Amino acid sequence: MNKTEVTRSILRFANGQVEEIEDRIVTEYPVTIKVNGEEFVTMVCTPEYIEDMVIGYLASEGIVRRREDITDIRVQEKEGYVYVETDKANPYSQRFQSKRYITSCCGMSRQGFVFVNDALTAKKMTGVHVTLTPADCFRLMAEMQESAALFRETGGVHNAALCDKQGMILNRMDIGRHNALDKIYGYCLRNEITIRDKVLVFSGRLSSEILSKVAKIGCEMVLTKSAPTELALQLAEELGITTVGFIRNQSFNVYTCSERIDTTEEL
Amino acid sequence: MNKTEVTRSILRFANGQVEEIEDRIVTEYPVTIKVNGEEFVTMVCTPEYIEDMVIGYLASEGIVRRREDITDIRVQEKEGYVYVETDKANPYSQRFQSKRYITSCCGMSRQGFVFVNDALTAKKMTGVHVTLTPADCFRLMAEMQESAALFRETGGVHNAALCDKQGMILNRMDIGRHNALDKIYGYCLRNEITIRDKVLVFSGRLSSEILSKVAKIGCEMVLTKSAPTELALQLAEELGITTVGFIRNQSFNVYTCSERIDTTEEL
Repeated sequence: MNKTEVTRSILRFANGQVEEIEDRIVTEYPVTIKVNGEEFVTMVCTPEYIEDMVIGYLASEGIVRRREDITDIRVQEKEGYVYVETDKANPYSQRFQSKRYITSCCGMSRQGFVFVNDALTAKKMTGVHVTLTPADCFRLMAEMQESAALFRETGGVHNAALCDKQGMILNRMDIGRHNALDKIYGYCLRNEITIRDKVLVFSGRLSSEILSKVAKIGCEMVLTKSAPTELALQLAEELGITTVGFIRNQSFNVYTCSERIDTTEEL
Repeated sequence: MNKTEVTRSILRFANGQVEEIEDRIVTEYPVTIKVNGEEFVTMVCTPEYIEDMVIGYLASEGIVRRREDITDIRVQEKEGYVYVETDKANPYSQRFQSKRYITSCCGMSRQGFVFVNDALTAKKMTGVHVTLTPADCFRLMAEMQESAALFRETGGVHNAALCDKQGMILNRMDIGRHNALDKIYGYCLRNEITIRDKVLVFSGRLSSEILSKVAKIGCEMVLTKSAPTELALQLAEELGITTVGFIRNQSFNVYTCSERIDTTEEL
């Protein structure tokens, strides 16, 4: 089993003093996915829940649609290879991997998508399957942050949690921004967990890439303690996703689709 | 000219009150690089200093080596395309773009490189061309952070600065972690600025990808207010790069190559 952190001797300067201390440092671990024998992508991640991450990644890229589309998956842990066999690989998605999504009038697509595969696999949300009160937002963010012990101790990892109104169901961390979300998605696909009525809670900035990932997973609400980008918010509006940001110190912002935030009880 | 931030009406909840406010949101802007007419890569960035970013990116990927290798560069700003013409494109680097770097014994290369192009273009540092005292470290980090106004106001961008012992020479921000460094590299290539005796100051986590970028730029010291990863530190040791992290509250850590930090004067 590869370690998610190691200790290392470093020099620490503090208040004019220097000393040698043992510090805890997070690890990075390269994983190369081979689909039907061909090198597909190399990602760098925190070495845990690799199989879930690969399933989640391939599903969000549109290469497979569900766990059963994968006939065999084998993690070669030490070397960092994952061999995936599938007879359902979507040739259309493979062809457009990291290709830019272009529409007629100008470079940026009307919907705000940057990559073809994002436009192909993102789901549009209609209706309201989950609502949160402001108290729920604070509680879920606090729960996610309390569970994220590694972040506090070594710095520099991203945390994500799948929650429902009652509390946290699953939490994952990774040094890669979207890997933590892929790990959650893969787990849900393996265990056939309905995502539509859940909420994703994320520690990092809400970029267009992260918002695309939320849409591909099929979640209609995302909470973060950080800021969003304008492109992420355009996508969120287009796809009907509620975005809540800057959750800290008893305040937060609702950027899009505020109908899923219920303020009637408390305000 | 595309805007680096826009304003947007949002709902703000604070201390039990809800109000509609105008908030400032950073933008994301997709740029597709075409090299000699072929789509090379699409990156998402903050829309300023695009030409420098593209030159810096192509040089750090090993596609070109210097500004003169590019015979023509044309930024189609609105649509987000950059057309690069070069008769010096390195076919070896193009072939290995995002391909994993493998050595004999196991998946991870001995030197800690993940991608072939990183191993091909990273420079090994020998000797000491710049030293900093602890006071220099605090001062340069403070200068970079003061200059990074957008970060404080809208959240969610990364900042990088090129400094010498005297102070900041150049600072760039971007929503993409390595774009800010590419913008600095491109500027230096265009203006033939020597990098060897300078210091890079960065706001974000020091991952292997960022450390590779520092090495490709040719800098022998990097300061950050955040944490490093173990793979980044392995690379730093291998390449002779001084890494200083967690610069905050009158303390910091020196992880590698501490000979460039001069403590004799102050301690």
